[in-house]
Amino acid sequence: MKNPKSENISWHHGDVTRADRERVHNHRGATIWMTGLSGSGKSTLARALESALFERGCSVYVLDGDNIRHGLNRDLGFSPEDRKENIRRIGEVAKLFTDAGMFAVTAFISPYREDRDMVRALMGKQDFLEVYVECALDVCEARDPKGLYKKARAGQIPEFTGISAPYEAPAAPELTLRTDQLTVDQCIERLLAHLSAHGYLAPEPEAAGV
Amino acid sequence: MKNPKSENISWHHGDVTRADRERVHNHRGATIWMTGLSGSGKSTLARALESALFERGCSVYVLDGDNIRHGLNRDLGFSPEDRKENIRRIGEVAKLFTDAGMFAVTAFISPYREDRDMVRALMGKQDFLEVYVECALDVCEARDPKGLYKKARAGQIPEFTGISAPYEAPAAPELTLRTDQLTVDQCIERLLAHLSAHGYLAPEPEAAGV
Repeated sequence: MKNPKSENISWHHGDVTRADRERVHNHRGATIWMTGLSGSGKSTLARALESALFERGCSVYVLDGDNIRHGLNRDLGFSPEDRKENIRRIGEVAKLFTDAGMFAVTAFISPYREDRDMVRALMGKQDFLEVYVECALDVCEARDPKGLYKKARAGQIPEFTGISAPYEAPAAPELTLRTDQLTVDQCIERLLAHLSAHGYLAPEPEAAGV
Repeated sequence: MKNPKSENISWHHGDVTRADRERVHNHRGATIWMTGLSGSGKSTLARALESALFERGCSVYVLDGDNIRHGLNRDLGFSPEDRKENIRRIGEVAKLFTDAGMFAVTAFISPYREDRDMVRALMGKQDFLEVYVECALDVCEARDPKGLYKKARAGQIPEFTGISAPYEAPAAPELTLRTDQLTVDQCIERLLAHLSAHGYLAPEPEAAGV
């Protein structure tokens, strides 16, 4: 064994590549970016997709308000700069999970086209799937799972997307899911079908026909 | 099927838990935080550990300057506040990978005890393994893989750790690896042995005795 002091410490077993990871995972890595109004069902779909992919043996992780706002982005407020930085950081983290050969599923309103396009530009061409979780405002407002619309209507939340701040719908999303017309199961079927049809998921023999 | 419009969109398959992921991965999630001088071998060990764990079927990802400084943290400079924020964000991202039931291996000088302790405090008690990659300064300087010591000695890099800025060695690291006394293989054996002995890795029947 050589004298470790004189050994140039640049030895590598050979780095683990993304392709290595994807081969083991038996699927491609990608970021599935859900965008839509508050109450449109982004988090519900993200969690349901995570379960469906996990049950198929995929490597998948959800980024949402629960694990980002009180962690990585807890220093950010709601100024225009901070909103943009919020989305940028989420994009960068999603990129890391994607590089790890995983599905990163994000569930943030992300109302501005410019911000979503910035994230798209960060990533490889096939690594970013924008999913428009579309739902009529009145349906979202009727659902109002966190009581936010009520507060926004009462003027207690300034610049609330859809009420007092704009939502810019995607111009060319990879997929649109109308959660005011489809059930969660139907949405998940469409997501899985899209991932299979575009080569992200390997075909599964026992998969139910969609 | 119920009218989707009236359906309360809060249906879940049942969220995927960290325990579910760890069961599938057959190991615990944890952050393995390498700290040490420039040239001490952090990145080399991180990549070698990644390879060794990947070959054992583990789910593992390295965070280092290559994927962080030009991505998530590209807005940060080298002021005291930015250095702290750099480490905080890396800690938060490592926490996400750990929550995904993975080994996050980080390779940053992270010279300040306070910053490393902040990251430790972010995480569950058993989720953070501080690994002191110890190496005599003169050995690091002789290696000087990026020519940084030469520049620092020439006064071209202000506040260079070990030369013109302090390195605060860990007071009670989970593991210390003296890279000026051990080979890379020996270091990796010790890391794997530590992970096995402390229940992070399941015992592997075909593992070489260490």
